[in-house]
Amino acid sequence: MRDSWSGSDLHLELDPARKRRAALESALRTAIQDGRLTAGTLLPSTRALATELALSRGTVTAAYDQLAEEGFLTIRPGSGTRVADIPQTPAPPPAVLTEPPAHDLRPGRPAAGTFPTRAWLAATRRVLHHAAHATPDPQGQLELRTALAAHLGRTRGVRTDPTRIVVTSGYHQAVTLLAHVLRQNGVRTTAYEDPGHNAYREAVQRGGLTTTPLPVDARGAQVESLTTEKAVFLTPSHQYPLGVPLHPHRRRAIRTWARSTGALIIEDDYDGEFRYDRQPIGALQALAPDHVVYAGSISKTLSPNLRLGWLALPHHLVSPFVQAKEEADTHTETLTQLVLADLIASHAYDRHIRACRLRYSRRRRLLLDRLAAFSHLTVHGVPAGLSTLVTGMNEQQALAVCTTARIALRGLTELHQDPGTSPGGLLIGFAAPSDSAYPAALTALSNALTTGRLN
Amino acid sequence: MRDSWSGSDLHLELDPARKRRAALESALRTAIQDGRLTAGTLLPSTRALATELALSRGTVTAAYDQLAEEGFLTIRPGSGTRVADIPQTPAPPPAVLTEPPAHDLRPGRPAAGTFPTRAWLAATRRVLHHAAHATPDPQGQLELRTALAAHLGRTRGVRTDPTRIVVTSGYHQAVTLLAHVLRQNGVRTTAYEDPGHNAYREAVQRGGLTTTPLPVDARGAQVESLTTEKAVFLTPSHQYPLGVPLHPHRRRAIRTWARSTGALIIEDDYDGEFRYDRQPIGALQALAPDHVVYAGSISKTLSPNLRLGWLALPHHLVSPFVQAKEEADTHTETLTQLVLADLIASHAYDRHIRACRLRYSRRRRLLLDRLAAFSHLTVHGVPAGLSTLVTGMNEQQALAVCTTARIALRGLTELHQDPGTSPGGLLIGFAAPSDSAYPAALTALSNALTTGRLN
Repeated sequence: MRDSWSGSDLHLELDPARKRRAALESALRTAIQDGRLTAGTLLPSTRALATELALSRGTVTAAYDQLAEEGFLTIRPGSGTRVADIPQTPAPPPAVLTEPPAHDLRPGRPAAGTFPTRAWLAATRRVLHHAAHATPDPQGQLELRTALAAHLGRTRGVRTDPTRIVVTSGYHQAVTLLAHVLRQNGVRTTAYEDPGHNAYREAVQRGGLTTTPLPVDARGAQVESLTTEKAVFLTPSHQYPLGVPLHPHRRRAIRTWARSTGALIIEDDYDGEFRYDRQPIGALQALAPDHVVYAGSISKTLSPNLRLGWLALPHHLVSPFVQAKEEADTHTETLTQLVLADLIASHAYDRHIRACRLRYSRRRRLLLDRLAAFSHLTVHGVPAGLSTLVTGMNEQQALAVCTTARIALRGLTELHQDPGTSPGGLLIGFAAPSDSAYPAALTALSNALTTGRLN
Repeated sequence: MRDSWSGSDLHLELDPARKRRAALESALRTAIQDGRLTAGTLLPSTRALATELALSRGTVTAAYDQLAEEGFLTIRPGSGTRVADIPQTPAPPPAVLTEPPAHDLRPGRPAAGTFPTRAWLAATRRVLHHAAHATPDPQGQLELRTALAAHLGRTRGVRTDPTRIVVTSGYHQAVTLLAHVLRQNGVRTTAYEDPGHNAYREAVQRGGLTTTPLPVDARGAQVESLTTEKAVFLTPSHQYPLGVPLHPHRRRAIRTWARSTGALIIEDDYDGEFRYDRQPIGALQALAPDHVVYAGSISKTLSPNLRLGWLALPHHLVSPFVQAKEEADTHTETLTQLVLADLIASHAYDRHIRACRLRYSRRRRLLLDRLAAFSHLTVHGVPAGLSTLVTGMNEQQALAVCTTARIALRGLTELHQDPGTSPGGLLIGFAAPSDSAYPAALTALSNALTTGRLN
């Protein structure tokens, strides 16, 4: 390794790993930004500095010119080269890494370690060149829309076609843009399941729409209480967070309501792939394709980190939605789209979902076995999804105990529009921990529930 | 291969590749959706249909129950099972694939075939598991923000740190969210280079901000004409579309203007990596880090299809921007972020840019050689970037000839806020075609320019 050059008067340290001119420029820039070289300081002549640093005079001249062009120096013929007036760089604050929970029982996150790495890499290899060079489509790449139309029809009974599917960067973006489009179409009032997913409800409200609470019970949303709302947000396959499907009578009732009033149903099929005791209920969308926006994503099947979702839209909403998507971010990045299209077409996606279904079904049984020891608790919902709602405790106390034990999960109350109406409860995810971490997480949860009861 | 079962009275075709119950359900669903089984039709008893289709009665009962639950059938004890009232599926319109141009001279698209597929795949293999399971950060994954802070400091002179960098799904989203944040902060008036990038200007306007035209000349934006605007959008390294850097006097003048008025400069460094005759001018941001939002992306270096961009923000804008990002789509997908962080840290990104620089430099020379034959044309800008502005022709005629020849490029006029002020010209991209396609594209362009002159 060579020694550094140094400019003694200027205290310049030249990085020997870089080319001489670049090293000189960098050293001068740093000295100016740090405040070691203050505004107005006269620099040595190019000849003097070249001699001192054993550089060619041309190198120094080029460096001075470069820095003058960038605004760090001012060169005036006859009066030499001076440091310009540049504010100093403050010391950066330290970057913060948040500590992960010891036990991850957050609802809605798929299992660590089940991501189909090998299949994803193989698909990436097949589509990467095309993904980088294909003409992007704000509606979503046609390959993915075609694969999704067939897949959703076969697995969820969705009645659509590639021209009515739009691809988004996850459901959160979809609902944000949809609220914008609905407002453009004159919608102001919507109904939103209560309790329901609060982050999406807030996205609807940010879009300028009201969200009248739509109560839910063991038969799902009480759709008979809908009146003049222009749209309703539902989770009919598996109500979030209660975990029950919408009763067949109510499915028919809401279809009738939508068709007679012209209102829109937004069906968030957020975990419709995961039913463990029987075949999943088909999408509500199939009953009224012209009145239902069907929404899905890979957040529960693959990973929420990859931000990929889709809507099957009534025809008249496709064009305004695609325009909103284009205005927001032009299009969803093409690589994940084409990888997913490949995984669906090769049936690797189906195989992955089947494997997850078996795994999550076992996970849920293990959780329910543990909860059976607590006779005061009520477990809600059908065998489905990635989380289970449990009520019958003091939620605030239970959450405090879980926080102390570094167990991450959700309280029921924050999912209510009016916290005063919540009976209190815990929404416990059973999918996220690794196989090896899951038993310890269940034990920690049991201990917390025991402690919580004693309080 | 087995024969299909068929339900003679109902004309049901059961798919022999599926399980019997699923095949029966699917056949019934299709018949109802197609309108072959109309609303109110009484279905055969489970016993009768089971006999006819050689299925067990339990299979038929389960299928009827499933379809009743989905809303396709109504089962009333004593009155049998009937078809519910379902709208028919219209025939889907054909999906349209747009025809690609024969000669792709669109500005701003990097070369087909230069995407570093091998390095990208290797990085994907290293980061995929982490990308699927990491805790996502709405500001951007810390690995990428750390890599970017070092990279931008070293290659572009940007003075920032990981806490002041935010990651977005491309520059279009960045400017859209930034307009929203500026308006929240009370900004209403901005100045925008004219001519300039019209899509981003429209994004600023959609955010509720005015965009006073800021004229440009051979020394870049005429910043001395700035008055009371609260923000200015600039391309100081390489003005889009003129292709000239902002003159050192003007760099200092706009820094003084921003510091004295408290206004914000948005520096779009869209192709700052690509200067061919000398070292690139460092970022304007370095002169006033508290008054400049520095923006970059991988759209020119890797691919615009992958939607990844970043901002280096003054400290006070970080938190409101991150909130706007979270509200829009929670966060940018993690995989591309971690792949890029890996490519930067392993210097594969630098190597790729150097290779592209050589390639595009040659491409530009070949274009200028062809244009030299047209003495009436003026070529603008310094040797840099991925496109060149040419004036001196009737733009409308030239574009018409190019359209006929299926040459894709851009006219200058659409980049002006007031089309009447445009001298007319063509913005010719030289990066997108493959090596084998480029000579033919140049010949087609030469022919079009010759024809256009004759008109």
